[in-house]
Amino acid sequence: MSAESIEELLHPSALSDHDPVFTLHEQGKMEVRPTVPLADRDDLAAAYTPGVAKICEAIADDPDLVFDYTWVGGCVGVITDGSSVLGLGDIGPAAAMPVMEGKAILLKQFGGMDAVPLCLGTTDVDEFIETVVRLAPSFGGINLEDISAPRCFEIERRLQERLDIPVFHDDQHGTAIVVLAALVNALIVTNRQVLDTTVVISGAGAAGVAIAKILYEAGVGEIRVVDRQGVIHPDRPDLPPHKAELAGLTNRSGISGDLASALQGADAFIGVSGGTVSERALAGMAEDAIIFGLANPEPEVHPDVARRYATVVATGRSDFPNQINNVLAFPGIFRGAMAVRSERVTEGMKVAAANALAGLVTDRLAPDFIIPSALDRRVAPSVAAAVATCARRDGVARR
Amino acid sequence: MSAESIEELLHPSALSDHDPVFTLHEQGKMEVRPTVPLADRDDLAAAYTPGVAKICEAIADDPDLVFDYTWVGGCVGVITDGSSVLGLGDIGPAAAMPVMEGKAILLKQFGGMDAVPLCLGTTDVDEFIETVVRLAPSFGGINLEDISAPRCFEIERRLQERLDIPVFHDDQHGTAIVVLAALVNALIVTNRQVLDTTVVISGAGAAGVAIAKILYEAGVGEIRVVDRQGVIHPDRPDLPPHKAELAGLTNRSGISGDLASALQGADAFIGVSGGTVSERALAGMAEDAIIFGLANPEPEVHPDVARRYATVVATGRSDFPNQINNVLAFPGIFRGAMAVRSERVTEGMKVAAANALAGLVTDRLAPDFIIPSALDRRVAPSVAAAVATCARRDGVARR
Repeated sequence: MSAESIEELLHPSALSDHDPVFTLHEQGKMEVRPTVPLADRDDLAAAYTPGVAKICEAIADDPDLVFDYTWVGGCVGVITDGSSVLGLGDIGPAAAMPVMEGKAILLKQFGGMDAVPLCLGTTDVDEFIETVVRLAPSFGGINLEDISAPRCFEIERRLQERLDIPVFHDDQHGTAIVVLAALVNALIVTNRQVLDTTVVISGAGAAGVAIAKILYEAGVGEIRVVDRQGVIHPDRPDLPPHKAELAGLTNRSGISGDLASALQGADAFIGVSGGTVSERALAGMAEDAIIFGLANPEPEVHPDVARRYATVVATGRSDFPNQINNVLAFPGIFRGAMAVRSERVTEGMKVAAANALAGLVTDRLAPDFIIPSALDRRVAPSVAAAVATCARRDGVARR
Repeated sequence: MSAESIEELLHPSALSDHDPVFTLHEQGKMEVRPTVPLADRDDLAAAYTPGVAKICEAIADDPDLVFDYTWVGGCVGVITDGSSVLGLGDIGPAAAMPVMEGKAILLKQFGGMDAVPLCLGTTDVDEFIETVVRLAPSFGGINLEDISAPRCFEIERRLQERLDIPVFHDDQHGTAIVVLAALVNALIVTNRQVLDTTVVISGAGAAGVAIAKILYEAGVGEIRVVDRQGVIHPDRPDLPPHKAELAGLTNRSGISGDLASALQGADAFIGVSGGTVSERALAGMAEDAIIFGLANPEPEVHPDVARRYATVVATGRSDFPNQINNVLAFPGIFRGAMAVRSERVTEGMKVAAANALAGLVTDRLAPDFIIPSALDRRVAPSVAAAVATCARRDGVARR
């Protein structure tokens, strides 16, 4: 076999499918690159043996130096088990890789962080946790991704207990941070106060739980979370732990019933269920309502319909105004947290990130412009600065 | 905190140490880079959601497509537990990272392969194996690195039994392949036949065991392996499994005694012990002897001394002729094996790699030139082609 045929095998120029999206993804979306010269013997002697031994010995003496003299301090592990990928469900580790690569290159493009996509061949909670703990010396932060609820709550909690680097489940907190930012601005646009606002969240999965918690942290007056069985309240039988926790934080007015009941008089609707919401239910909302239909690609209610019942409408889609896109949060979160070697991402850091994000467009607010564009280059630096400052204030920064 | 100070924290411009090797290693030696455009909304929609969902679904239907539509097919996991790093011993996962990064960038520079350095926080054999098995969906090949003997033998064997991608412990086989290539040419230079040659290996660690096995595979007539207790032979009590296996393959003449006894009349000495060899012992070797003192940075015998007793002298150092350097092997091995999606690296593929390497300098052989330079750009493509061809012949290639 010739060197040329090896090249062709490793980089086949034409696969069977002629869809340009498939062509784009051939051989993946990322590569590694040396950042040091490797052209001659002196280069090799400095970057590899014997020069590298000095660096190893220095880190052996002071393990913290790994953050200065390797890529670890700026490198995020983007880790999944493939159990809840996009809207596709449990499609396994191999099929999850295209999403993890995407996440990794967005961390680089927008946050300037290096990131490694890892898809683990286990869906056992204990095995997943042990594996990530053993991997942790290789990373300065862990981005958990596309892990099914409620497993994701336990996995994140137990990992963060065992690791002293940030562990961040983006499907929860990335979404929650951007939702809070958008909501803060939507409340300004509609002349509301956070404390007096009633928000209904449809969906109690990863995103719904995290949104409820961050809204609680931000001081939203009344939060109602609705799942398939209706409004979550403490008297509902057989609540799993994450919903029992929500029951304690939400629904101060103690209502029960279905989504339509919950929406009666509510100021804002946030859909993260993948389901739908009826026009009849939306009709019961307060005047100048706020509707975020975040299911993707099909929102819980089409923006054109939502507009009949609301002053501010947002979706997860890029082809409508007000796109709630996680990429507004996670690159800056990791950049800020890892710059100060934060031990974790606190609730305060998440709220600080949301406020920084919201603040970028305060001077141009309008019903169709409550959140910056994903391509706004100010976003990640602003979020990072707010997160780093808050990490120091919260006492979790190690420098 | 400002965006500028974040930048400074992530990329401190001056650390305390002014050694240029430390400066070179600041923030590590590698980065990840997107290989697709991410400049506008259309780019994001194709590379990330919603476009990426199509690729995920295709791989979910046919998991083999992960090799075509992600970086997995060209990506090597460079994995260690930090238990035997260079000559520094068990310095742990953090301190091993500079070497793993070095390995990763050499795979890219010389083999065109992407590679991810991973340092695992466990030295338990079972835990290490389970962790790598769970990581395996993320990689097209596994390079094990700097794992102490005899644990490395069991780890490699059990991992290869469970995985259908190449698992290659470079400290064993990379060294063995380059030694065989150099020896083949040294035998030509000194007018010897492989079958009639007696080779003494000092050291029965990772490299010594692998060298003994590849020399056996290549048909070397008599192989004697010497450890601290002397020559390995079947009657020695309490031989651990890897040495018992060697006892069955080597020492046909059934000698016992120390290194000097083993070297009596021997044609070639290969030192991979980190110890020393006396001039008295070398004086007993055959005429026109061959001496490879591969301990690094201090060879078992200085090349100037070795030259008094040998016609061909090689070391692991770049500042003497005939450098035995693993970088001559591993980039091409992975490139060739992964191009044909080989399930493993067979003994035949290792010998084929050595022969390809040796063949590159056949027309210019001299006592001081038995092996190509590490910077010879023909090396990796030639090794890759030989390895890929052999994988197909051996029936382990999946395309």
